[in-house]
Amino acid sequence: MSHAPEPGQRWKCICAYAGGSFAGWQSQARGQAIQDLIEARLAELFGKAIRIHGSGRTDAGVHAKGQVFHFDAVWKHGSEKLVSALRAGLPSAIQIVSAKPVKGDFHSRYDAKSKRYIYHIRLGQADPFTAPYVWSVRKELAFAPMAKAARLLVGHHDFAAFSAINGTEREDTIRNLTRLDVRRKGRDLRIIAEADGFLYKMVRSLVGALVAVGEGKLEVERIPALLKQGRRNSEVQTAPAQGLFLMKVYY
Amino acid sequence: MSHAPEPGQRWKCICAYAGGSFAGWQSQARGQAIQDLIEARLAELFGKAIRIHGSGRTDAGVHAKGQVFHFDAVWKHGSEKLVSALRAGLPSAIQIVSAKPVKGDFHSRYDAKSKRYIYHIRLGQADPFTAPYVWSVRKELAFAPMAKAARLLVGHHDFAAFSAINGTEREDTIRNLTRLDVRRKGRDLRIIAEADGFLYKMVRSLVGALVAVGEGKLEVERIPALLKQGRRNSEVQTAPAQGLFLMKVYY
Repeated sequence: MSHAPEPGQRWKCICAYAGGSFAGWQSQARGQAIQDLIEARLAELFGKAIRIHGSGRTDAGVHAKGQVFHFDAVWKHGSEKLVSALRAGLPSAIQIVSAKPVKGDFHSRYDAKSKRYIYHIRLGQADPFTAPYVWSVRKELAFAPMAKAARLLVGHHDFAAFSAINGTEREDTIRNLTRLDVRRKGRDLRIIAEADGFLYKMVRSLVGALVAVGEGKLEVERIPALLKQGRRNSEVQTAPAQGLFLMKVYY
Repeated sequence: MSHAPEPGQRWKCICAYAGGSFAGWQSQARGQAIQDLIEARLAELFGKAIRIHGSGRTDAGVHAKGQVFHFDAVWKHGSEKLVSALRAGLPSAIQIVSAKPVKGDFHSRYDAKSKRYIYHIRLGQADPFTAPYVWSVRKELAFAPMAKAARLLVGHHDFAAFSAINGTEREDTIRNLTRLDVRRKGRDLRIIAEADGFLYKMVRSLVGALVAVGEGKLEVERIPALLKQGRRNSEVQTAPAQGLFLMKVYY
């Protein structure tokens, strides 16, 4: 006897959130997780517990403009009304951007081909309205070495030195970083990262390393050596969560 | 015998704040007031209590880009270092924009000639990052009647009907509203208000009335009658604090 599939249609949703007031995407012992709030809203709407599956976790304080999750449910009123119904019961810091019906074998995590993140840095003090969404760096940063270091990081490498993987975990730490751009506009710096997958705290570690290079604390020449050594050391700092946005998941 | 003046130079400061996490400008029984936090920082810096005088109060939740205050203190290291020292000890939601020495008889409240406020409305749901700074209005608003109502409100009038003045207070409720512009750009509406002074909750009441006009709940023709009747009634709603910004104080 085979197990019955979850009843109803599979829905793929895109959502945005300001991460500052949440304990991250996934349920934690302390604080409200974004996933829990969305599941609570679905339970209200459908009158039963519905599990959602995210494309991946984001840490406490990290924002998203294009997080993706899926779930199964019987809903006969179309995408637009589903989006409205979900929006109505969520805090303004979480927004369901879209919902669309997909094939029953779509999986938001396993089917993800790559992801794009953007990290925002403000050189000097940010105004009170953008401060929750940037890393305010008080020192001058040398742009050219940062761009050079970024180019050295792009490619198919072991990124263990640029992650917060626990040394005892035997995870495959090789990823293909297809893009790492440093863009400057006035006193705003944006770092755009794309890869087939990211290790735990990898974007924040890459950004921390690039800023260390910009500050003159880390030599560009150390980058290939760090990639080769395959473990993290104190040369790589982790940039704060509040500057990081998950922008898009590609399928 | 005359009283000695406060020692030191008089300083005029401009500050910005995201009002969402504070109990308003002025000290309240509950919650942190912005004035208290700035005074606490000054006390740390100068080693004694220093009173600051704001151009006026802003309510809990109201933001500012150009609030002005003054205080007297002995500081020999110049404006730039004073700004840095004040910034360093304040939360990122409060920012000292500038400090400059002024004549000893300057007064941030009594010398203010006029003020400019901007109120931000989003038609539909705001994204999670701008939601704390706008009023999200879910209905369509008719723009032309709003603009017409705004033109009728400009001028030298008794604005008691557009304020939250307690009926028993015998305050002069006549003000000269020199500008009330409604500007639309896509789904963003900005209402710009300038006057020689504003009554308690006057901008939010003007905005509330304009939105009621846009929704078709209040006829444009009622505006002159409301100005004439000189007291508030249920036709005028108060727009939420979070869309309001004090932009500039003119001297």
